[in-house]
Amino acid sequence: MLLTEFQKQMEKYAELLVQVGVNVQPDQVLYVESPIESADFARLVTAKAYQAGAKYVQLNWRDETVERMRYDLAGPESFAFYPPWMAHMMESIAESGGAVLLLDGENPNLYEGVDPAKISASRKAAAAARRNYLGYVRTNRISWCIVNVPSQAWADQVFADRPQEERVNALWESIFRMNHIDEEDPVAAWRRHSQHLRAVTDKLNAKQYRRLHYKAPGTDLMVELAPGHIWLGGGQVNQSGIPFVANMPTEEVYTMPHRAGTNGTVSSTRPFVLNGQLVDRFTLTFREGRVVDFTAETGYEALKQFLDADEGTRYLGEIAIVPHDSPISRLNRVFYNVGIDENASCHFALGNAYPTNLQGGAGLSDEELLARGANVSMQHEDFMVGSAELSIDAEHEDGTIEPLLRNGSWVIR
Amino acid sequence: MLLTEFQKQMEKYAELLVQVGVNVQPDQVLYVESPIESADFARLVTAKAYQAGAKYVQLNWRDETVERMRYDLAGPESFAFYPPWMAHMMESIAESGGAVLLLDGENPNLYEGVDPAKISASRKAAAAARRNYLGYVRTNRISWCIVNVPSQAWADQVFADRPQEERVNALWESIFRMNHIDEEDPVAAWRRHSQHLRAVTDKLNAKQYRRLHYKAPGTDLMVELAPGHIWLGGGQVNQSGIPFVANMPTEEVYTMPHRAGTNGTVSSTRPFVLNGQLVDRFTLTFREGRVVDFTAETGYEALKQFLDADEGTRYLGEIAIVPHDSPISRLNRVFYNVGIDENASCHFALGNAYPTNLQGGAGLSDEELLARGANVSMQHEDFMVGSAELSIDAEHEDGTIEPLLRNGSWVIR
Repeated sequence: MLLTEFQKQMEKYAELLVQVGVNVQPDQVLYVESPIESADFARLVTAKAYQAGAKYVQLNWRDETVERMRYDLAGPESFAFYPPWMAHMMESIAESGGAVLLLDGENPNLYEGVDPAKISASRKAAAAARRNYLGYVRTNRISWCIVNVPSQAWADQVFADRPQEERVNALWESIFRMNHIDEEDPVAAWRRHSQHLRAVTDKLNAKQYRRLHYKAPGTDLMVELAPGHIWLGGGQVNQSGIPFVANMPTEEVYTMPHRAGTNGTVSSTRPFVLNGQLVDRFTLTFREGRVVDFTAETGYEALKQFLDADEGTRYLGEIAIVPHDSPISRLNRVFYNVGIDENASCHFALGNAYPTNLQGGAGLSDEELLARGANVSMQHEDFMVGSAELSIDAEHEDGTIEPLLRNGSWVIR
Repeated sequence: MLLTEFQKQMEKYAELLVQVGVNVQPDQVLYVESPIESADFARLVTAKAYQAGAKYVQLNWRDETVERMRYDLAGPESFAFYPPWMAHMMESIAESGGAVLLLDGENPNLYEGVDPAKISASRKAAAAARRNYLGYVRTNRISWCIVNVPSQAWADQVFADRPQEERVNALWESIFRMNHIDEEDPVAAWRRHSQHLRAVTDKLNAKQYRRLHYKAPGTDLMVELAPGHIWLGGGQVNQSGIPFVANMPTEEVYTMPHRAGTNGTVSSTRPFVLNGQLVDRFTLTFREGRVVDFTAETGYEALKQFLDADEGTRYLGEIAIVPHDSPISRLNRVFYNVGIDENASCHFALGNAYPTNLQGGAGLSDEELLARGANVSMQHEDFMVGSAELSIDAEHEDGTIEPLLRNGSWVIR
């Protein structure tokens, strides 16, 4: 790709994030979190946001080197500390109707060799401090969007088969492809794509299945859905009625499992990065919703620390279906990034459920949510279970069964 | 200089800022503001701070490109807005006893061509929002330190006579020189230097002069000192008794003029950068403390906007004496940076006075400060008046006069 063409695609991606991702409104505050390494792209986003009428763009630059340094050099008492002013900032921005855009490009090996107890302590402190802010996000009261921007360390992992100087651009090109940036009008392409996903959710919502039965090599899992569950996909609408898309790319439709209704064993099909540590080839065994046993060939300790963070982490909070022939899946590459890999594969999330996946869920307290079968946790992490060998059967309230997925593809009509 | 030697000097400078500048204490939070362009140096500072026992280093990365973009692209309503969460962050860090280190390397031409009204509105909003935080700083309740780190744009201005690829390093070398980094033990060298400056303030405090008479080409100015004024220099002590140095380098001794006691005209001797705009060859004429007339060959409009921001900006808040043969002065270069240039030259500040320059001043309200002759303003900007031709006569309470400075050098015994 020529440099000018590349630059144009970057601009179109920035425009897409501003117009469709967070859908910036006149006079709105936009919060942008970006690695300092991605400054060129973050500046493009900022320019597009001001051109869209943003009142103020609050950049919050991050630096992985400094973040890692803390784990290597700070004393043990550092990790229970989360800066309260940062939590206050996020809460204030959300409260005042701001939009939140997170540009992520995490080095999948960032925390290699770090004591998982430190990471877990730090994560718990963050989750507790950011609780109110996360309430805005989980119930879609504000527009928010998490996307990925290539960093050298991340590209090194994904494109290890290519010469180093080509990797970052190769990753950019994949991201352009999966976000329809190479089409003439990416914004229009996205709107069509969203409509397609919403049509799928309409079909599934009409069914109101009681439970789903997952079968694949190493997987035999029965997942009960929460009564009153809602399938969502293709974007969200915030409390002011403004549409936005929380994850780009997105290929999933997702809903809420009943907290206590999962039984059996599931095997992962892709690696995932948990707090900067790689976890791969793992299994989880559930009894009445709870993870009672687990194995992992890579990252066992990281997985254990994660599962022990709070009781809710041991239960499913989300199930999502992505056909195995999705555009990202066809790129035939592991991206070591959950925001992308989850859209190449059926997946589950351990931890907090989205209240928006439940009829009347958005206004409920934690106690009320638990009573309706929704899981509650400080955490929420997706892991991938889809493959060309996955089948899902769906059981109606009356006990009749119909096939939903066969060999990884939709068979629902 | 060899790269490894250069790297060592960078580390020594980082160490000096942590040990002497903000004097980080175990379990303390350190706030570090840094341009993203200076990431390598900010990371060194962060490492030194954690090694000194800091509990948490809060980086706040800044990017001039994004800051300038706002002035070019945002609507007019943007400029009255200062993000309240940023003010809250600074206040919270100060309140909890954190230390504040600002790494500055501003492009002196950053705001060239921007409507000064926008800059003025933005600055007013910032000053109002940060009022409580600035109270901590002005009364030295916390340790704080402002220093300079080279950026390409700044180095281009200062070392325009050198090839471009050498300029940033040349600026670093000047900064190392003026901060005693090339000595064997810069921390010990700094302590000796501080003691010397404190010995000068002891002499001046014993005098309790009534007023100072400045004479130089274009300057004939009588400056009354506030009764109970204190000369300070060579570092500060915060409310917990921890010594720190607010500006590095520092060559000045400074005290408080009486708000209403300045009469005559003063001519600038160095350019200064006011809100990212160059102001040069200007004069100020005072009557009973107030600027009643002014001229400027460069930056008249910026100076006007600045003077009109609030009534207090029209009055002096600080006077500082630096001998013309100071080490920075001997580098014989304009640095287009007030933190450096003010330490090469006698200077005044328009705007807020430091309550610590007055006996019992730190606990006083604005009204009480005004009653004691201290100036109060949202702003505080230094400008340079020193030269090899400057003489200052000092008048005692009883009317006797003694020479203080002759041809820019101390004659006080």
